Amino acid sequence: MAKVKKQPRPKAQTPKGFRDYFGAEVVQRTEMLSKIAGVYHHYGFEALESSAVETVEALGKFLPDVDRPNEGVFAWEEDNDWLALRYDLTAPLARVYAQFRNDLPTPYRRYAMGPVWRNEKTGPGRFRQFYQCDADTVGAPTVAADAEICAMLSDTLEVVGIPRGDYKISVNNRKVLNGVMEVAGVLDPSDPDKFASERGIVLRAIDKLDRLGTDGVRALLGEGRKDDSGDFTKGAGLSVEQAEIVMGFMDARRDTGAATVARLMELVTGSQTGTDGVNELETIATLLDAQGYGPDRIVIDPAVVRGLGYYTGPVYEAELTFEVQDEKGRPRNFGSVSGGGRYDNLVKRFTGQEVPATGVSIGVDRLLAALHAKGRLTKETTGPVIVTVMDRDRMADYQAIVAELRNAGIRSEVYLGNPKNFGNQLKYADKRNSPVAVIQGSDEADRSVVQIKDLILGAKIAESASPDEWKDRPQQFEVARSDMVAKIREILDGQDG
Amino acid sequence: MAKVKKQPRPKAQTPKGFRDYFGAEVVQRTEMLSKIAGVYHHYGFEALESSAVETVEALGKFLPDVDRPNEGVFAWEEDNDWLALRYDLTAPLARVYAQFRNDLPTPYRRYAMGPVWRNEKTGPGRFRQFYQCDADTVGAPTVAADAEICAMLSDTLEVVGIPRGDYKISVNNRKVLNGVMEVAGVLDPSDPDKFASERGIVLRAIDKLDRLGTDGVRALLGEGRKDDSGDFTKGAGLSVEQAEIVMGFMDARRDTGAATVARLMELVTGSQTGTDGVNELETIATLLDAQGYGPDRIVIDPAVVRGLGYYTGPVYEAELTFEVQDEKGRPRNFGSVSGGGRYDNLVKRFTGQEVPATGVSIGVDRLLAALHAKGRLTKETTGPVIVTVMDRDRMADYQAIVAELRNAGIRSEVYLGNPKNFGNQLKYADKRNSPVAVIQGSDEADRSVVQIKDLILGAKIAESASPDEWKDRPQQFEVARSDMVAKIREILDGQDG
Repeated sequence: MAKVKKQPRPKAQTPKGFRDYFGAEVVQRTEMLSKIAGVYHHYGFEALESSAVETVEALGKFLPDVDRPNEGVFAWEEDNDWLALRYDLTAPLARVYAQFRNDLPTPYRRYAMGPVWRNEKTGPGRFRQFYQCDADTVGAPTVAADAEICAMLSDTLEVVGIPRGDYKISVNNRKVLNGVMEVAGVLDPSDPDKFASERGIVLRAIDKLDRLGTDGVRALLGEGRKDDSGDFTKGAGLSVEQAEIVMGFMDARRDTGAATVARLMELVTGSQTGTDGVNELETIATLLDAQGYGPDRIVIDPAVVRGLGYYTGPVYEAELTFEVQDEKGRPRNFGSVSGGGRYDNLVKRFTGQEVPATGVSIGVDRLLAALHAKGRLTKETTGPVIVTVMDRDRMADYQAIVAELRNAGIRSEVYLGNPKNFGNQLKYADKRNSPVAVIQGSDEADRSVVQIKDLILGAKIAESASPDEWKDRPQQFEVARSDMVAKIREILDGQDG
Repeated sequence: MAKVKKQPRPKAQTPKGFRDYFGAEVVQRTEMLSKIAGVYHHYGFEALESSAVETVEALGKFLPDVDRPNEGVFAWEEDNDWLALRYDLTAPLARVYAQFRNDLPTPYRRYAMGPVWRNEKTGPGRFRQFYQCDADTVGAPTVAADAEICAMLSDTLEVVGIPRGDYKISVNNRKVLNGVMEVAGVLDPSDPDKFASERGIVLRAIDKLDRLGTDGVRALLGEGRKDDSGDFTKGAGLSVEQAEIVMGFMDARRDTGAATVARLMELVTGSQTGTDGVNELETIATLLDAQGYGPDRIVIDPAVVRGLGYYTGPVYEAELTFEVQDEKGRPRNFGSVSGGGRYDNLVKRFTGQEVPATGVSIGVDRLLAALHAKGRLTKETTGPVIVTVMDRDRMADYQAIVAELRNAGIRSEVYLGNPKNFGNQLKYADKRNSPVAVIQGSDEADRSVVQIKDLILGAKIAESASPDEWKDRPQQFEVARSDMVAKIREILDGQDG
């Protein structure tokens, strides 16, 4: 047999735009997903885990953010079919509901959590694989379903550790914007396709309010806008008067929900769609009030414009209102962690029938980043108790020790590297952030004792300016083997406190 | 603007070989993963969640089962690089360890759980996406690491609900087989490449012991084998004497571990590698014994031959020993749910340095199927309490009722479909497997009462031959609104009992 030709070594590298998660990062996300699932379940939602792979045909092109140059999916051809990784959890829901609608209850409340993949330009904090955590109600036409999702979102944020006052959930309505566009003369209910291009530019413009400010948006509503690099973006061509009506919409929030509703009613005077939309907002506010969710948690705010191009009715967004420092050290609000709304056309693609649906998506990685920014999560976690190996031939004894600790509920392990250099064992324990090391040489074994080393105390003494204050607490001491478990538990309890 | 051309409707279909998981299926798997993670963590392992996507270069071709015609990955070209979905969790571990080895502790104990994808022929119960749940120790040369994984596997099976006696963990060693091949004359330690082709056939042959029986394997060790369809598979060309030595290896298990070890020692007489392998098996048995894991849980069994071509030292496998019925109604052992072993060459691909590693993979979906087969998991779970809607205009009242229930910790929801037909609301509650419905018309609202309907009792009465026996327990009754929560809790507690 011919010798196999040597291959060059492969590069050990996470693919560009992807990343790996270690230890506490994984555990904290798992715990957060579990808490969110708990709230969703409590509200009557059922779990769904759809396949990560969909046919490209079923996925369609429904990314919520319309303004991406490189929007796209990871796709490949297989058995004469194009398959792709899901880019969100909503498109798969539409497919699943259309496929299984005769077996599923209606309304169908479902939650889903898992990674999604986007084939996009990457950047700092922007990855091609990230977690979403969604809840949607399919088949419920009433805005009570939207109100319920907002209440649930509020509960969820508090359950994962964002206290009331540190977040704001804003509710808006696409129908109100449509009414405003009618009044502004860029939407004709009798000819829905007319001005479609202008409306597209209006939608994209107001989606950029955060980034461009009112002047930038106003320019895009009119003739157009030249950005800092000199590139010109063509505007919607609205007159100054038309543009003012649209700008007035985004600026319609007043001190109370009732005042905001009244202002919006003025703006949409003469438009049935607009009036419907304002009434829906009012109903949502009433229903939330009945459940005890006041404006300290959820407000009507027409400045919430993200994704209005995607949704067909109520739209909602949760942002965290506390300040963090951006990469240049400037304070800024943490910003959006969740968004959602009503979309009544997704299932129709498959079945031809309009199925009302509303839902929310929580950006779990953003929420975790927020908790880290507030110091409510730490990167370090306590490692296991380490049973060191003094005598390679007595491995069975060390295994018996660790079995005793584990049976007593204490997380622990035997050092399994090369035991020759004892210092390496302690360095390993340090790297693992271990609380305690257990040491037993043959002398200790003969006398049925073990040495216990309190590594947290040891680290404190090493750091301390006056080691004297620790002199009554020895960092290493001998105990009878029979007292080992009790003594170690005592140390662990003390370290927690 | 030109009208958009109508697209044909997409098919709502899970891609071929994939599936969706609903409700209890998702929750039960999540709970099982959480229990397994708990045991792994307790043993000192740290979580790792690597990217689902890898470069094809990093993945290599290391599928454990060598005998698949359609083995393969889902891959696509991106930015002049070939990317692929991971097909297991071991290849990514090798990449991660090679990439981050300077930051990770050594030994590196890590666990990982998540979906993997295989581009293979599908069949009943055989999907292209499934869950794995792995634990590996990288950088520990001692077989104490292998023994630890076997002990942990035993604990894990018991924690997820497989009682002792219903499973068997078998340990074997590739080195012993290598020793046997030396003695049989198809392995020459001074020229490792010689007879490589014959050894490949031997490995594939003994991997098929389960399926072909001893006669089939014997044929493949010799001239070859004609299968039922008439296809001829070329054999390894061993003489009858040589084949007998290999067959003796698979048949070496004796009543006690010591007797098995003694028999294996005989078989490998004259081979250093074989002797090393038998000594390793003996050490593993001793270490397990020291931790209290006897042959009622873990046995040395040379008939465990799966994946011996892949591993380089100890190999282990967990099978469930209870009987289930196969698709034709015949009783058979449930079979393998987990396997693993030592592989000392995976990281070397990247770094050129040999890094010892050993680990186990649990087939979570198989384990869940086992628990269902034993009746330890059910497909049905209790749904939420349903607050029905008698009067569409009083939605705020129903929302207040459900808020009160939720705040009291009771899973509940308001019916959000079209409330016109009350029968549909009860059908919905039935489909959700709801325990209780709450009913409040305007009359009840005026009197500050609600009707409570015990749906489980209702179903029992409907099924019962003698409805009389239920006459003292009304299935629907009126309570003061202020007593609603207490009364519903009472019913739910009674249903649980």
